[in-house]
Amino acid sequence: MTTGVRRRMGVDERRQQLIGVALDLFSRRAPDEVSIDEIASAAGISRPLVYHYFPGKLSLYEAALKRASEDLANRFAEPHEGPLGARLLRVMHRFFDFVDEHGPGFSALMRGGPAGGSSTTNALVDSVRQAAYDQILSHLRVEDPPARLELVVRSWISLAESTALIWLDGRRIPRAELEIQLVHDFAALTAVSAAHDEEMGALLRHMLRDEPADGPFGTLMNRLLALAF
Amino acid sequence: MTTGVRRRMGVDERRQQLIGVALDLFSRRAPDEVSIDEIASAAGISRPLVYHYFPGKLSLYEAALKRASEDLANRFAEPHEGPLGARLLRVMHRFFDFVDEHGPGFSALMRGGPAGGSSTTNALVDSVRQAAYDQILSHLRVEDPPARLELVVRSWISLAESTALIWLDGRRIPRAELEIQLVHDFAALTAVSAAHDEEMGALLRHMLRDEPADGPFGTLMNRLLALAF
Repeated sequence: MTTGVRRRMGVDERRQQLIGVALDLFSRRAPDEVSIDEIASAAGISRPLVYHYFPGKLSLYEAALKRASEDLANRFAEPHEGPLGARLLRVMHRFFDFVDEHGPGFSALMRGGPAGGSSTTNALVDSVRQAAYDQILSHLRVEDPPARLELVVRSWISLAESTALIWLDGRRIPRAELEIQLVHDFAALTAVSAAHDEEMGALLRHMLRDEPADGPFGTLMNRLLALAF
Repeated sequence: MTTGVRRRMGVDERRQQLIGVALDLFSRRAPDEVSIDEIASAAGISRPLVYHYFPGKLSLYEAALKRASEDLANRFAEPHEGPLGARLLRVMHRFFDFVDEHGPGFSALMRGGPAGGSSTTNALVDSVRQAAYDQILSHLRVEDPPARLELVVRSWISLAESTALIWLDGRRIPRAELEIQLVHDFAALTAVSAAHDEEMGALLRHMLRDEPADGPFGTLMNRLLALAF
């Protein structure tokens, strides 16, 4: 009966099923350690049938990565409502959910194993970074960012990536602490840039204008002032 | 006469010369665009003779990268004298010198082109990051870093990398501004971590204790206070 149901799958449905099975395996272990045999077995089909749908492991890996990239990019979408700090904190929470679900695969990809480094995988990683960048600019209501704002946002995105990678390596700091810390880091990097540039100063004031005293940005200010005095 | 001199080069001397020529070419253009023919021509020898010393372009690229890695790691070495902020600023200046000298090759490597991603290139990049990490800990006089300090230092190193990459893409911000800004970022990330953790608070106070008011850290504090009030 089960086999009968499997056999009736259409081409696209079967491809999607294989991508899902592969993504699950590539997420839970370093992709280099996952074999086509294992994917076939987890999908309940033969090895030749896998090759019927995907010419090789790399193409299946790229298809799985594409699905994961779209998933992650979607998690950056956040309604334009309420204070900025709280919005960013919700995004960070969903980002760490993703990193948590795809830990070993995320590490292997970002550390550039043999599966990484193809132009397709690089383009997918860049598309996620660009989606994160576009989302943040839209929340800041900036359409034509000055070079210093672009630098702050893009370098903060790389900080979020490296923070997640370091977290995965032993999970020695609670992830909730890192989520709020990254929101604070965003404010801190913007403040440093504002200390160098008038335009960034105006942007920082705009960013903090509607922040409540008990939001992430307000909390940081209070804690830093407590440290300083 | 010139040819005579060239012919008298020993094996190791010839290898070192080829590495130097290759590093120069791999630095000035994306390594994928540099051919063995070009390297042979720049070294004044035949293409087969290049292959006599290096089995292929990848092995020559890896040898060039090894030299560049050692060069960069050496630039992190800084005497343990004077205030910390000024030391870090001198290191950042030498880091940007390196990035400036090796721009296109540095970008291609860090963005993971086809030449990147081999286990040898990844190991070399990691060895430079580790050298930077060890240097910073030695300046902080910390031997057994808590997880939160390790996170701040390692994630700040990745911030320095991404800042340099963004700078190379158009050089729209003066590098001197980015050098001091990265020193400020280090203080800011440490301060954010200190806002979450007692031990990091103690470390931050220790770090700032001997800083002069006109040093990088003092300047940042004054500018931020001016922004806030």
